Amino acid sequence: MVKVAVLGHGTVGSGVVELFTKNKESIASRAGQEITVKRILDLREFPELPYAGKFTKNFDDILNDPEISIVAEVMGGLHPAFEYTKALLEAGKSVVTSNKELVAARGAALLAVAKAHNVNYFFEASVGGGIPVIRPMHQCLAANEITEVAGILNGTTNYILTRMFHDSTPFDEALREAQRLGYAERNPAADVEGADACRKICILSSLAFGSHVYPETVHTEGITHLTLPDVEYAANWDCVIKLIGRAKKLPGGKILAAVYPALLKHHSQLASIDDVFNGILIRGNATGDVVFYGRGAGKLPTASAVVADMIDISKAGCTSKSLTWCDSDGKNVGDYKEEPLRFMVWGTLLDTRALATLQDVMGSVTFLSRPGQPEGETAFVTPEMSEYALSEKLEVLGNLFKVRSVIRALDY
Amino acid sequence: MVKVAVLGHGTVGSGVVELFTKNKESIASRAGQEITVKRILDLREFPELPYAGKFTKNFDDILNDPEISIVAEVMGGLHPAFEYTKALLEAGKSVVTSNKELVAARGAALLAVAKAHNVNYFFEASVGGGIPVIRPMHQCLAANEITEVAGILNGTTNYILTRMFHDSTPFDEALREAQRLGYAERNPAADVEGADACRKICILSSLAFGSHVYPETVHTEGITHLTLPDVEYAANWDCVIKLIGRAKKLPGGKILAAVYPALLKHHSQLASIDDVFNGILIRGNATGDVVFYGRGAGKLPTASAVVADMIDISKAGCTSKSLTWCDSDGKNVGDYKEEPLRFMVWGTLLDTRALATLQDVMGSVTFLSRPGQPEGETAFVTPEMSEYALSEKLEVLGNLFKVRSVIRALDY
Repeated sequence: MVKVAVLGHGTVGSGVVELFTKNKESIASRAGQEITVKRILDLREFPELPYAGKFTKNFDDILNDPEISIVAEVMGGLHPAFEYTKALLEAGKSVVTSNKELVAARGAALLAVAKAHNVNYFFEASVGGGIPVIRPMHQCLAANEITEVAGILNGTTNYILTRMFHDSTPFDEALREAQRLGYAERNPAADVEGADACRKICILSSLAFGSHVYPETVHTEGITHLTLPDVEYAANWDCVIKLIGRAKKLPGGKILAAVYPALLKHHSQLASIDDVFNGILIRGNATGDVVFYGRGAGKLPTASAVVADMIDISKAGCTSKSLTWCDSDGKNVGDYKEEPLRFMVWGTLLDTRALATLQDVMGSVTFLSRPGQPEGETAFVTPEMSEYALSEKLEVLGNLFKVRSVIRALDY
Repeated sequence: MVKVAVLGHGTVGSGVVELFTKNKESIASRAGQEITVKRILDLREFPELPYAGKFTKNFDDILNDPEISIVAEVMGGLHPAFEYTKALLEAGKSVVTSNKELVAARGAALLAVAKAHNVNYFFEASVGGGIPVIRPMHQCLAANEITEVAGILNGTTNYILTRMFHDSTPFDEALREAQRLGYAERNPAADVEGADACRKICILSSLAFGSHVYPETVHTEGITHLTLPDVEYAANWDCVIKLIGRAKKLPGGKILAAVYPALLKHHSQLASIDDVFNGILIRGNATGDVVFYGRGAGKLPTASAVVADMIDISKAGCTSKSLTWCDSDGKNVGDYKEEPLRFMVWGTLLDTRALATLQDVMGSVTFLSRPGQPEGETAFVTPEMSEYALSEKLEVLGNLFKVRSVIRALDY
């Protein structure tokens, strides 16, 4: 019999407790023994719940209980989650978490503490909700050199982009719809400005490439600036726009890591992942591209990933030597602007004579059109070039072409 | 240092040896120690290879070598693969395999031998090539009750169906093209008649539901009878046709398991998996639907799954208590014909007066059309009914309607 505790009885925490009841038998059979929730930490009271007696407001009741060997930290936020996790690991308890903010900010430190105390710090639920991605990436792809990871890592923004594309709903309205449906929070900044996707790509790239990628070193753009003309020009080029988090190994050993909206061709592997679904592509030197997709959030999907980690720990004898990474000085991330890409650019051309200059400067571009395109509005896709080269060329054009939007094109 | 052997130096076997060289460092780092291939069993000689000295034609050189602790069986076929695997497990060596025929036919027996000798029999490479599916299904979804598994499990047939749909290539020609490209074997029966997909769904459903599902108990249809009119009517109903292997738990405890071509709506999760790609959908009571996709075959993808299993075993101390299932008497599979489904039916109507009778008998049908549809040819989609009910109704129609094709519609 393994006894566990849950820190936080919010959406995910209550889902964890629910699963231990609902799937009790299959969990015991997979784990090889029964697992029961002994304690739940929450400042609120839930007198109506059948398991009301398990609640405590005092963290020490869990920390100092020698019977509790595994703890799920599903409270979110950096503090006191970091201090609690560290204390639990130091006390010889394994911790599993759905807290992407904490893993992205302090993962290397906590993994080192876990290792020093021969326990585990697992975080399957921190990326992709119920989609298994951390474990498959680590284990089943162990025989590969992973060269690149990319994904639609945030369901809220994917829902908004899907509405913009399928129903021509403007961003603001699609966001309100997402909020009405419970897909977006009242303060949607972490989703729509890309911070959530940034945390997840930090975790994926740290694991894939072995050194901690810190969120503040990752160039992050959200989707708040996207407009229906962006959507229409993208469609004209047979593309959708998705918010992509990506990381790849650069030849010199550094890591390219970034989050931004990008054009993907309709037939590409991530293009058809719509609505609140998440999809993660892992490119390996032996497997080629492998894609995982499913619901990236939600109570039970995320809780199932938390519980799966707890089952795994209950079976493992000791600390994992490889589901881990080293700390870094933050200089492991290279310059994303050096990568040669194609860009979709649109804006206003001063006059028709400027068109020839534009072609001279930009090289062989593909022009795009949209219904009701205003006089002078010009959209095109550039040949492959670095972002530095693009900036220079746009500067050369100067007043001849007033840029309204630049979106990168990717190939996943 | 772990020493391993490889049985069979064909496509997959040579890929396994290649990966141990190519990804030597990352394998050692994931496994926590170096892994080297000590022996390779093959009746042929490969004097030109740098590792020619490792070959043997004598199985006993591997069986009786106490240094060899893990063996990859990648020879395929039932015999002598079964006898070799059993002997190795009994000798206390773990075995990993890509041999779906063997796992589907004798998996329960071999898993029991492995358990009795405290070693492992792993088979990630037997389904989905390089796509991690066995391990994620087992481990990361441990907290779920799996209710259903379905997939595009055979790349050759998926390539053929993709050509039929995208380019209106007839079956025979698409098959020849697949052979020319190396996607189909000279004798393509195991692929196009569904046996390969059947073996894979047997493995997936055995693992998902815990009791061995034998291939001979699984209703299996291939794609050889599919025609371009099938494709055109399907397209008219906004569907594609995919060869689907599926298994689900029936209310009484039995398992529905079957392989057949089926209609999938364009927006469904498996519909956009084209060409030689495989995709596997796992439906859980907590995660909802999770889909894995990638290259389902090929030298390095399959070899990477074999090597990942070997790494896993090199880290594990003892036999897995849960990556396993029990034997069965073959009566665990229920009657697939009882499941209510919609069917696409087309054929020749005797005369236009028969149309009213057809509608009376079949209920509320959706009529379909195709370009150049011959006089009298009639296509429709039935309401939901069992296959028994459909057969009765078609019998009632008798000579009024001569059936040419019936294809089931699924919802994945």
